[in-house]
Amino acid sequence: MSYTAPVKDMLFNIEHLARIDQVAQLPGFEDSGLETAQAVLEECAKLNEGVVAPLNREGDLKPSWAKDGVVTTTPGFKDAYRQYAEGGWQGLQHPVDFGGQGLPKTIGSACGEMLNSANLSFALCPLLTDGAIEALLTAGSDEQKATYLHKLVSGEWTGTMNLTEPQAGSDLAAVRTRAEPQPDGTYKIFGTKIFITYGEHDMADNIVHLVLARVTGAPEGVKGISLFTVPKFLVNQDGSLGARNDVHCVSIEHKLGIKASPTAVLQYGDKGGAIGTLVGQENRGLEYMFIMMNAARYAVGVQGIAISERAYQQAVGYARERVQSRPVDGSMNTAAPIIHHPDVKRMLMTMRAATEGCRAMASVAAAAYDAAHHHADAEVRKQNQAFYEFLVPLVKGYSTEMSLEVTSLGVQVHGGMGFIEETGAAQHYRDAKILTIYEGTTAIQANDLVGRKTARDGGTVAKAIAAQIRQTEAELAKGSSNAQAVGKRLAAARDAFEQAVDFIVANTKGNPNAAFAGSVPYLMLAGNLVAGWQMARALLVAEALSAKGQDKAFMDAKITTARFYADHILSRAPGVAASIVDGAEGVTAMAIEAF
Amino acid sequence: MSYTAPVKDMLFNIEHLARIDQVAQLPGFEDSGLETAQAVLEECAKLNEGVVAPLNREGDLKPSWAKDGVVTTTPGFKDAYRQYAEGGWQGLQHPVDFGGQGLPKTIGSACGEMLNSANLSFALCPLLTDGAIEALLTAGSDEQKATYLHKLVSGEWTGTMNLTEPQAGSDLAAVRTRAEPQPDGTYKIFGTKIFITYGEHDMADNIVHLVLARVTGAPEGVKGISLFTVPKFLVNQDGSLGARNDVHCVSIEHKLGIKASPTAVLQYGDKGGAIGTLVGQENRGLEYMFIMMNAARYAVGVQGIAISERAYQQAVGYARERVQSRPVDGSMNTAAPIIHHPDVKRMLMTMRAATEGCRAMASVAAAAYDAAHHHADAEVRKQNQAFYEFLVPLVKGYSTEMSLEVTSLGVQVHGGMGFIEETGAAQHYRDAKILTIYEGTTAIQANDLVGRKTARDGGTVAKAIAAQIRQTEAELAKGSSNAQAVGKRLAAARDAFEQAVDFIVANTKGNPNAAFAGSVPYLMLAGNLVAGWQMARALLVAEALSAKGQDKAFMDAKITTARFYADHILSRAPGVAASIVDGAEGVTAMAIEAF
Repeated sequence: MSYTAPVKDMLFNIEHLARIDQVAQLPGFEDSGLETAQAVLEECAKLNEGVVAPLNREGDLKPSWAKDGVVTTTPGFKDAYRQYAEGGWQGLQHPVDFGGQGLPKTIGSACGEMLNSANLSFALCPLLTDGAIEALLTAGSDEQKATYLHKLVSGEWTGTMNLTEPQAGSDLAAVRTRAEPQPDGTYKIFGTKIFITYGEHDMADNIVHLVLARVTGAPEGVKGISLFTVPKFLVNQDGSLGARNDVHCVSIEHKLGIKASPTAVLQYGDKGGAIGTLVGQENRGLEYMFIMMNAARYAVGVQGIAISERAYQQAVGYARERVQSRPVDGSMNTAAPIIHHPDVKRMLMTMRAATEGCRAMASVAAAAYDAAHHHADAEVRKQNQAFYEFLVPLVKGYSTEMSLEVTSLGVQVHGGMGFIEETGAAQHYRDAKILTIYEGTTAIQANDLVGRKTARDGGTVAKAIAAQIRQTEAELAKGSSNAQAVGKRLAAARDAFEQAVDFIVANTKGNPNAAFAGSVPYLMLAGNLVAGWQMARALLVAEALSAKGQDKAFMDAKITTARFYADHILSRAPGVAASIVDGAEGVTAMAIEAF
Repeated sequence: MSYTAPVKDMLFNIEHLARIDQVAQLPGFEDSGLETAQAVLEECAKLNEGVVAPLNREGDLKPSWAKDGVVTTTPGFKDAYRQYAEGGWQGLQHPVDFGGQGLPKTIGSACGEMLNSANLSFALCPLLTDGAIEALLTAGSDEQKATYLHKLVSGEWTGTMNLTEPQAGSDLAAVRTRAEPQPDGTYKIFGTKIFITYGEHDMADNIVHLVLARVTGAPEGVKGISLFTVPKFLVNQDGSLGARNDVHCVSIEHKLGIKASPTAVLQYGDKGGAIGTLVGQENRGLEYMFIMMNAARYAVGVQGIAISERAYQQAVGYARERVQSRPVDGSMNTAAPIIHHPDVKRMLMTMRAATEGCRAMASVAAAAYDAAHHHADAEVRKQNQAFYEFLVPLVKGYSTEMSLEVTSLGVQVHGGMGFIEETGAAQHYRDAKILTIYEGTTAIQANDLVGRKTARDGGTVAKAIAAQIRQTEAELAKGSSNAQAVGKRLAAARDAFEQAVDFIVANTKGNPNAAFAGSVPYLMLAGNLVAGWQMARALLVAEALSAKGQDKAFMDAKITTARFYADHILSRAPGVAASIVDGAEGVTAMAIEAF
């Protein structure tokens, strides 16, 4: 099944919701207006549609495989990766100083979606490299930057994040990998890391592992964790590759999905110690890692949108071709393509609305990121940073949870054929399931949202968002019947959100079990609201443009999709608030031994 | 991961909700009281826990395989099936006249759940045999009954249902397989059938295919379809096996889940015609098939409950053992088993409440079936039949849709380990996905619910159920704070249901697209309501018994689970009603070409 990048929808968001015109006024982004966005997206679409997407099924059928510590990727991946790197795509959002394009996230995140729609397994390699670049930019020494950044930004080398150990998953306090300081200022690293995405592969000359470990004598818990760079091949002074470092792939996992992406168990120090260099200061590793995790969490949210889009396109394609039964309204005398049946339309609309809603939310979050990092005014930067940070767990948690529903519906639209692996719909269903787990499970995102993003400031940012939504409601109230219908749902959802915020603010300290029992429902409610809000904003824009006759078919579809979102998805919000406010009793009352 | 049959919960439902004391007053069921139920369930648990469950993972790793038309099942399946048949389990609910046990469905369906929890792939073979028995009991000639029923009821032979063809899935009007009448009264069958569960295998001596086909010259559409028995081996007059019939397995499918269950493409008549005999009258095949499909639909609903139970047990087991992070309430100074974390409890409670709610609904439906078939009073039979028929699409549709949520949460509880196939959680997630598709997709169930079960009688049965629920609400209102909290949610859900019923009754004829656009949401709302109602009834019983000190730990857990169901699942109902009543616009407005 082929993939067509939704360039038009992306540009709609970039222009009208993320407001690229405002992004282009930020220092450093003067050349990044709508025209640039369009040119970049169209070029990006070509590569992903033509080169990367056709390898998606192949990767599922012929996953990466490991033998004697060597990992061979799916046939075709190596060449596709070469084209990706040569096209300069790895450097899209990275600084020009290190060979990047220096484009805003507002554009870059749309490109990221395309790559992930084309091939989720393939896209993980660049995604992790982005994280490594981010960490080195933030906390790397000049020497580390000089040694690694050009090569990573060019895509010649790739990066990994080494957090997890068998006993340390969500709880990084339990990390045991140790680092022994050496007289020359380097460290020797010993330990086992698991679930290392692209921890070993054959697509690049070198792999730069960013590794969490404890320096000998460091404090227990999270305050004793440091971050190290450990390259697969040591790098000589002149930048050429030196000796093989003492980090080896023991095995790769047999997984439910994203099979082409090798998930490695890495062993450090079996032959005397892997040589690493400290990033930043000792014992501040978790802090640096969080910076790169925030970038990665946003990116995983985009993966959710991406797999949803791919599943939607596949389902629409099948629904147009598969002929079965007459329409219930008697409009046709013969069996019709199933896209004519109301419930098939409902499923496709659910897939579409969820995808477009999450895409709009991610686009607006990207613009906030750009303003938070580039705006001249510190107060504006601060406001945008707070808004972005509130949105990260929503982009990650809500978009990926919705991708489970979307990819499940994708199988369902195919009926019995969906259950047959040859059809390809099942692959998306399997692939998507990792997205609610890695880079912090939905519960971890929800804890972040409840603790750091809502309770800590007494709900200030949350309420500020609610206030902005009220403004959109006021505009909707003056509008068409569709606008008013959407406004009614938006108001009910915003009201539910405010109730939930009040409950969380009131209970997080005094009754944490009650607050955290509703953490994931709160995340789902907030994500639903913000995505629905963006769809409502989109409806207002689309109505105005449709009235002018501008791209009428697209605008009318956007209006219908926004209406659908409100009545079928946003309408879930009040029930979720009930679970949060009244539901703690049913969670906490159960005795552990009674399960 | 082992399986422990939830005998206590099943007996609670059978005793207090399905009221086995009343079932045991029906003619023919005099010996089928609570003691019998307990003895049968305990014996059934032994076989399934000890013999069938351990083969579940094996079946996923070593699926059935086909070579030259011969299908070999997973190692161990053949022997387990022999034990199943020898134990008399195939005949549990079938007439004593043909060697069965003649037990009520109220008991039989609990046994069915155990078999399916133990091994969904394995259980499909008996499930389909039940369907074949049902069809022959209903419409078979005396000769057909004499030839096949004893062997099917004893499990020596197995049965299949042959409906689907490449162009005829949900739409059986498109069936093309043809039957040519022969001078001796038999028919020669020619055609291709796909998706035939256990269409070929090595566990039994003979396979009796029940096949939909068109007799030469029959009318077009559904009114020209007849039903035939086509055995794999012809049966001699003395009952011994004769020549191999001209039906052959061409291939089996490579599927997302239930891999051990061979899904065959069967070719009829490549060597001159497969010999079949007509069941009942010509052109009434679909009518007979619907009888057996209703039984199979109920049974697939039970599969949803079964896989949910298995996933729940696996998740609880992991959550008790996996140690990660300190509890948020500061109650422990060290990292705790994750079952202590509120969101893990919330996930487990969601799994548990959904499973128990659907189980209670299925149990009550089974009792209605027994009364509908055995009660002495025709009016009572009729009422129970109407109630049962309303519940079948709910048991099938709602329980299986919920099993997708439950098995997904099952993976989620495991975190990263859930995505690794060795863990086993992913298998349940993959296996469950077929349940919303086969024996009629959720949309097909929903069409049945909207058209035949709600609109046709002007909502009479639906409103009668709502009236019964009001009585439960009245009891809850007089009860404890938990009872009142549940009553509030039940009333809101029942109110939402009545709104939806009114909308459906008003629109199904005049505006079918609007009514059917909300068909699946209506099914989900109705299923949620009826399951929630049964949980509310369970709460009232459990409170009374807990107060008497009877099995207090169990009763208190039931109360908490019922409360959880109300606040976390039943609370979704009002939002769904909004989608049904206001949501058609967003579905129907989208132009086909705009997708």
